[in-house]
Amino acid sequence: MQKFEVTILGSGSASPTISRNPSAQLLNIAERFFLIDCGEGTQIQLRKSKLSWARIDHIFISHLHGDHYLGLLGLLQSMHLLGRKKVMHLFCVPELKEIIDIQNKYSGTELNYEIEYHFLSTNGKQLILEDNKVKVYSFPLNHRIPCCGFLFEEKVGLRKIKKYEFEHRNISLAEIHKVKQGINAIDNDGNEIDYKLLSDSAAATKSYAYCSDTKYDERTVQHIKGATTIYHESTFLKDMIDRAKATFHSTAEEAAKIALAAESKQLILGHFSARYGDLEPFLLEAGAVFNNCLLAKDGEIITI
Amino acid sequence: MQKFEVTILGSGSASPTISRNPSAQLLNIAERFFLIDCGEGTQIQLRKSKLSWARIDHIFISHLHGDHYLGLLGLLQSMHLLGRKKVMHLFCVPELKEIIDIQNKYSGTELNYEIEYHFLSTNGKQLILEDNKVKVYSFPLNHRIPCCGFLFEEKVGLRKIKKYEFEHRNISLAEIHKVKQGINAIDNDGNEIDYKLLSDSAAATKSYAYCSDTKYDERTVQHIKGATTIYHESTFLKDMIDRAKATFHSTAEEAAKIALAAESKQLILGHFSARYGDLEPFLLEAGAVFNNCLLAKDGEIITI
Repeated sequence: MQKFEVTILGSGSASPTISRNPSAQLLNIAERFFLIDCGEGTQIQLRKSKLSWARIDHIFISHLHGDHYLGLLGLLQSMHLLGRKKVMHLFCVPELKEIIDIQNKYSGTELNYEIEYHFLSTNGKQLILEDNKVKVYSFPLNHRIPCCGFLFEEKVGLRKIKKYEFEHRNISLAEIHKVKQGINAIDNDGNEIDYKLLSDSAAATKSYAYCSDTKYDERTVQHIKGATTIYHESTFLKDMIDRAKATFHSTAEEAAKIALAAESKQLILGHFSARYGDLEPFLLEAGAVFNNCLLAKDGEIITI
Repeated sequence: MQKFEVTILGSGSASPTISRNPSAQLLNIAERFFLIDCGEGTQIQLRKSKLSWARIDHIFISHLHGDHYLGLLGLLQSMHLLGRKKVMHLFCVPELKEIIDIQNKYSGTELNYEIEYHFLSTNGKQLILEDNKVKVYSFPLNHRIPCCGFLFEEKVGLRKIKKYEFEHRNISLAEIHKVKQGINAIDNDGNEIDYKLLSDSAAATKSYAYCSDTKYDERTVQHIKGATTIYHESTFLKDMIDRAKATFHSTAEEAAKIALAAESKQLILGHFSARYGDLEPFLLEAGAVFNNCLLAKDGEIITI
């Protein structure tokens, strides 16, 4: 089975703490590395995690609150200093380009590599990236400024060949390629053979939904329905629901309601307010609604 | 004696390492707190050092390379979130205001407190701040983009009163205030008495010069002559002097030459390139020229 895991680089919210950096995650899908958000200090978190920066070719920035992007310029400039030449694909709102350009201008920096911008829209769910292994979608979240979540889907994999059926039925092994993709084979006598007789279905595909920052909004569910794992912000506990509403954030209980409605298998809670030291109450509160919750912790790797 | 010490918050250069954050220092002169440069991660470094942010009212940014200012916006926004109301004085080139304004605009942030900007000039030595305890000067450094060093001077203190001379010479204690400031006293018979007979000179004043980033430039010496302690960047060892020249940085030996020519008492080396693990060679190289050298280390407090 191909790798599908996320490394938490920052689990804190606006004001970082010693143990919780601001938002950043590195997603590894079959050795493709996707950086999601890039709060201040992300390049140091990447160094600590011993993950290779060089393999990050896609960065997704959900919105322009500082705790989600202030580490980006330092990371981009360090990549430049370390000799990067490959194009970097940056998915963000257009205003981030202005912010990057003005700072590179005043620091006299001309990056050795190109940034290819892919501007996000908050107008519904959008396919923003597709290759032979992965599809990535953006979708609108409900926050104080324009903000997108991201859904990463493995593509349906190749069917599993029953080799003995090929031998038994006198079919050339040259037909394997077609059958793996769900196309009927032709045997050595010219007869068409149903691919389902010759193969088992592919392993179920997995998907990961990143929902931060957002207030509780049931409209999110349609965009992430069936996601294997959902990361949903839970800045507050439910006794602070008024503060959550006022600041367009969510409580742990609300995050769990979204995961339940989306029929997900696993919920990761994160973006915890600096006011909380002990995070166990988040697990208890969300666990009463949805039965497979995890806490995002800086440095931890979670399998999707 | 009043406090005069500097906490090193970052001793690294452009590319941070796990043990060396980018440039930032917190200077404490008689419980006035001056933040000098603010590389990415400075707010976390301040939290680790358990220093109170609330007491920082003056921030000095030497220049607009990212490793000297990318932590500023996060710090300013965290101060806002933590309820700061006091004016913050920011000493920087005018372009930094643009960089701050555009990011606050796009994040929808209106700070709860005012930033009073004091724009730096690279046209010679300039008095940029003075109160009853301290004078602060900026002076030009020689770097790839406009860059200023800073000189922090204690003001000459009050003279030390010889109380027995007042009694012996029949002088009212009401005259003490004048004598402390070096003004002659009048005794009870109306005669003028030389203040030097009635007092000893004040304790020697101390000063701290911050020189980063800069290539070796003897013109710097005139601006920092006699500074008690000099921090001078030493990005490289002398075997990389060509690289130092090309990038407008200094070697450890060059930093020591500046401290020697400035007749300083103590030299702090810092801004070390990420390529160096062991820093002892910096001490050896500088120590061959100037006999009181220290290495800047993240988290250390150095008495001036």
